[in-house]
Amino acid sequence: MVKIRRAETQDFPEIWRIFKNVIAKGDTYVNGSETTEEQARAKWMSETAKTFVAEIDSKIVGAYLLRANQVDRGSHVANASYIVDENARGQGVGKALALHSIASAKEDQYRAMQFNFVVSTNKAAVNLWKSVGFQIIGTIPQGFKHATLGYVDAYIMFREL
Amino acid sequence: MVKIRRAETQDFPEIWRIFKNVIAKGDTYVNGSETTEEQARAKWMSETAKTFVAEIDSKIVGAYLLRANQVDRGSHVANASYIVDENARGQGVGKALALHSIASAKEDQYRAMQFNFVVSTNKAAVNLWKSVGFQIIGTIPQGFKHATLGYVDAYIMFREL
Repeated sequence: MVKIRRAETQDFPEIWRIFKNVIAKGDTYVNGSETTEEQARAKWMSETAKTFVAEIDSKIVGAYLLRANQVDRGSHVANASYIVDENARGQGVGKALALHSIASAKEDQYRAMQFNFVVSTNKAAVNLWKSVGFQIIGTIPQGFKHATLGYVDAYIMFREL
Repeated sequence: MVKIRRAETQDFPEIWRIFKNVIAKGDTYVNGSETTEEQARAKWMSETAKTFVAEIDSKIVGAYLLRANQVDRGSHVANASYIVDENARGQGVGKALALHSIASAKEDQYRAMQFNFVVSTNKAAVNLWKSVGFQIIGTIPQGFKHATLGYVDAYIMFREL
């Protein structure tokens, strides 16, 4: 069973372990494999975002961070980023994180949620977001430099809350 | 005649004067009127962006900043922000900045250029971008909280270089 809770400072090494493996593949995340631990810490443990971790049997298997997609006059739209441990695939971690993040964003009074950069060839992610109510509202032509496929489109996805 | 050059540290007070007036209106920029001078400096004089100013008769009448829209695997797409002094409207400053920024982005080897947040009711901007080759590739429903109109759509605009 997947349990989701707020991340604490001491969770960062596990988040970094998972994030490092995700970005090493170069097929789903904008951050390159050259991303440093300090850059990852700045992203995942930021004071301007809320970070949550997913656990199975008390082991961290995924995380997400929630923040405003824009400042001030755009701050009513949330943005989120997600990672799942490759060793924990097929256990519903992504879906659990997705649903939890939607509930968190509603709780924090956001009116909508937007992803700026979903890699079009990442079918698992695109289908997951569609299954929880997101729509593709835009396509960035060749916006993502994929490690093996070259330049591929990136989607902007959105749902009201 | 509009002259455009790289901004220097001592140009910031003029950039701030123009930016402050632009954001005070609350109808075109995501930054709120509560933005501080230091926040504006961080945005406009950032080391991760290139800032240019437009001058007429040696007076700064506008500025733009150019940067990568995403890190790493998305860093081949440029992003830019523009301001024009309200007292210098109708003199082609916006168009001059637009064309200069496209040329700068090409020179810096970007493959495309993207605006993440063009306020749909800002017809002058939307038409300007269309006139220099940008297309609307997505619409964020009610993404912008307009000072007088309430929530209005924001456009994502894009052009190849």
